[in-house]
Amino acid sequence: MYTIDQNSKTPLHIQLYEALKNDIVQNLKVGEKLPSIRKLSSTYNLSKNTVESAFRQLYVEGFIESYPKSGYFVSDTNFKDFRTSHANKEAIETTQKSYKYDFFPARLPKDSFPLKLWKRIYTKVIDETLDLGGYPDGQGEYILREQIAEYLNNSRGANCIADQIIVTSGFGESMGLLAKMLKSTHDTFAMEDPGYHIVNQVFSAYGYEIEKIGVDENGLMIDALQKSKAKLVYITPSHQYPKGVSMPIANRLKLLEWAKDTDALILEDDYDGELTYYNRPIPSLQGLDKNDKVVYFGTFSKYLSPALRVSYMVVPQHLLGLYKTHFDSHFCKVSLDTQITLAHFMKEGHFDKHIRKIRTLHKKKHELLKKLLEEHLGETMKIEAQGAGLAIIITPAVAFDWEKFKILAEQEGIKLYFAKGVSGGSWEALRLGFGGFSEKELYEAVEILSKLWRKALLN
Amino acid sequence: MYTIDQNSKTPLHIQLYEALKNDIVQNLKVGEKLPSIRKLSSTYNLSKNTVESAFRQLYVEGFIESYPKSGYFVSDTNFKDFRTSHANKEAIETTQKSYKYDFFPARLPKDSFPLKLWKRIYTKVIDETLDLGGYPDGQGEYILREQIAEYLNNSRGANCIADQIIVTSGFGESMGLLAKMLKSTHDTFAMEDPGYHIVNQVFSAYGYEIEKIGVDENGLMIDALQKSKAKLVYITPSHQYPKGVSMPIANRLKLLEWAKDTDALILEDDYDGELTYYNRPIPSLQGLDKNDKVVYFGTFSKYLSPALRVSYMVVPQHLLGLYKTHFDSHFCKVSLDTQITLAHFMKEGHFDKHIRKIRTLHKKKHELLKKLLEEHLGETMKIEAQGAGLAIIITPAVAFDWEKFKILAEQEGIKLYFAKGVSGGSWEALRLGFGGFSEKELYEAVEILSKLWRKALLN
Repeated sequence: MYTIDQNSKTPLHIQLYEALKNDIVQNLKVGEKLPSIRKLSSTYNLSKNTVESAFRQLYVEGFIESYPKSGYFVSDTNFKDFRTSHANKEAIETTQKSYKYDFFPARLPKDSFPLKLWKRIYTKVIDETLDLGGYPDGQGEYILREQIAEYLNNSRGANCIADQIIVTSGFGESMGLLAKMLKSTHDTFAMEDPGYHIVNQVFSAYGYEIEKIGVDENGLMIDALQKSKAKLVYITPSHQYPKGVSMPIANRLKLLEWAKDTDALILEDDYDGELTYYNRPIPSLQGLDKNDKVVYFGTFSKYLSPALRVSYMVVPQHLLGLYKTHFDSHFCKVSLDTQITLAHFMKEGHFDKHIRKIRTLHKKKHELLKKLLEEHLGETMKIEAQGAGLAIIITPAVAFDWEKFKILAEQEGIKLYFAKGVSGGSWEALRLGFGGFSEKELYEAVEILSKLWRKALLN
Repeated sequence: MYTIDQNSKTPLHIQLYEALKNDIVQNLKVGEKLPSIRKLSSTYNLSKNTVESAFRQLYVEGFIESYPKSGYFVSDTNFKDFRTSHANKEAIETTQKSYKYDFFPARLPKDSFPLKLWKRIYTKVIDETLDLGGYPDGQGEYILREQIAEYLNNSRGANCIADQIIVTSGFGESMGLLAKMLKSTHDTFAMEDPGYHIVNQVFSAYGYEIEKIGVDENGLMIDALQKSKAKLVYITPSHQYPKGVSMPIANRLKLLEWAKDTDALILEDDYDGELTYYNRPIPSLQGLDKNDKVVYFGTFSKYLSPALRVSYMVVPQHLLGLYKTHFDSHFCKVSLDTQITLAHFMKEGHFDKHIRKIRTLHKKKHELLKKLLEEHLGETMKIEAQGAGLAIIITPAVAFDWEKFKILAEQEGIKLYFAKGVSGGSWEALRLGFGGFSEKELYEAVEILSKLWRKALLN
């Protein structure tokens, strides 16, 4: 006898289904006949519909078979080890260390995001006019692309239209898309050395041969590039990653000339382009180019929030056809509501204001970190890069035990970031991010850091 | 003489910078000396700071050089073709055709998204406690992963914990991640034929050899799989794509047995798992598995909104170490606010209710489309798949001119979707999505469709 509770919250047909299934698994044999619908209906005081519904589910899941005019039978399968209990799962012990201070070079302060304003705009613009039942435009919503194009033309000296913008969920996705698009026409990829390891990874994964081009005080060494066979080069002209130098106008023009003469393509990563503290931002290379030889890469992560996951690229017009025919996935990875809110945030002028605000904020912290480093470390260190971005980069000016320093930092709970790990080269330096710290925290963090640094000095 | 306007809104140092730059580009020669700071300061009645600031910008951008005690000089570069005007860019003419009726098989009605509720939750939970200055958890926010695990265990018969969930921005990203993760241990990839072309593309791109396994009325043919050398198979057991059949319990158990015996891995795409109209959803394979041989793939696109871009996968515990060590990109592509809002939406029980609501909604439309097709096309068609998902799949039951039919539909502005294009096989069928239509639109759309269908019948 099955237990069917007429007063239970569980529907009757589900109670019967569970009871029958249990019986099949535990007791019945393959081919055995089940009680008829009429029988079950009268025994348990159930409607015929209820019993049929339970049988239908058992049938669909394959537990029973039905033969016309004969009834229902247990299917031919081995249920012996069905529904035996699983071991309870426990989370894998992840020893995620928590640090006292984290010098991550690419974060913004928690409270710098314009939350109230964002929510006000969100509430206003996310409404019934939006089609949340469909997929967003594969290239990104037009209204957002218009705003990005306008911003780039006005603030970054670019020269583009909405049609050239592709919205992505991050720099890595942008690079991956481009690597895929150019795979059939390019096989060698030149990049700065030291340079951004993520880019190396992406292009290596797509099978490109990587040519590393040195970097001097003017950025990428163009002479070396000219000697290479690459017709595709990645650069960070505004603020070279990780060395921090800017490429002067003469070299920018030379680079564009090279691209024109050799029919090459320049991938301009406008890394930290807006975050300059001693001068106005340097206009983009894209805007200087008259021959459609530059692909521009930008992001909102450093200026607004990395948690929104919005980046973009500007593709020259001659690549648009290729993109639209073969590489438009039709599914932009950025959610529609984020795209629309951001578009209106920009349209109402808030983004420009916000950039000015955070530039001032970061400049102050940058100055403080610099001052503290000079006070504490003095002659023992050399500042390699400063004046832009979210980090100051230093190297020891005297004999120094890097290994000891790294171990001490881990022991003290200070999370540090080094150039070697992210630039793929042999150049070692300490990248001290200040973006996430309050001023008070910066004082404390640098004090601890300095003690460890001094312990790692040799003799 | 430069024009410097003391009353302009443009800061004085920027006016001077622009004037000097213009002079350099237009008139001055390489190596030519610029007026001294003192001279410019007195001529234009500017502070020394203002002039220095203009010079600094020109210096940083590389227009001028500075020699101690000598002053500033025009840098050695060719400015002749600098700043010449660009041709105005115009959008490439994209002839995006607009259709009268679009039978897209994977969309939801525009008004089915619970907009008011979503906004209420967004407004409540997006607050200062969120860290919008940092990157979201690479695996997805823990609170969302907890909710997904609970939902899967309760509603899809799964057996998982939050630690096993990886949040992605779409099914393609999930598949790509897995293809990357297994590259070093697997080289052959088995999938259903006909099957989902996106999966084929992703695994081919990563260099896997693809083995196509036939599909019969019980889904993937397990005998054929057993004969193949693949130790990795992709299936859509709840609702086979595109044929629409479900895999019976006996075959599910056989498949799990195969995976256990050969130490293979099953990729379970729970395609349309919740959208069944004649029976309750069939519990997932993942929950039946006792040997950690199943990776489960799910998405919110079909149940809530494709515009939110949230999908996920459930990884067996033995793959978690590999993921965390080598494949956690540290940047989940879904924005933090979407993740947090969705987590609370689920936590408050709205997601479960919403699924029930849209199941009823879709069932009604499904019944209507089926009725209309039977009325209009009668004996000339065969329904291949129905009773689940967002589309009914039909084939002609009589001689039929597919080419003529396709041309007529284009001419009439009816956007249709066919099995061949998306399943890579030779099986041709018409996939009629009903999700985006209102009932009224369905009546009209099927009427037009039927006329075209009849014209394409041979003899």
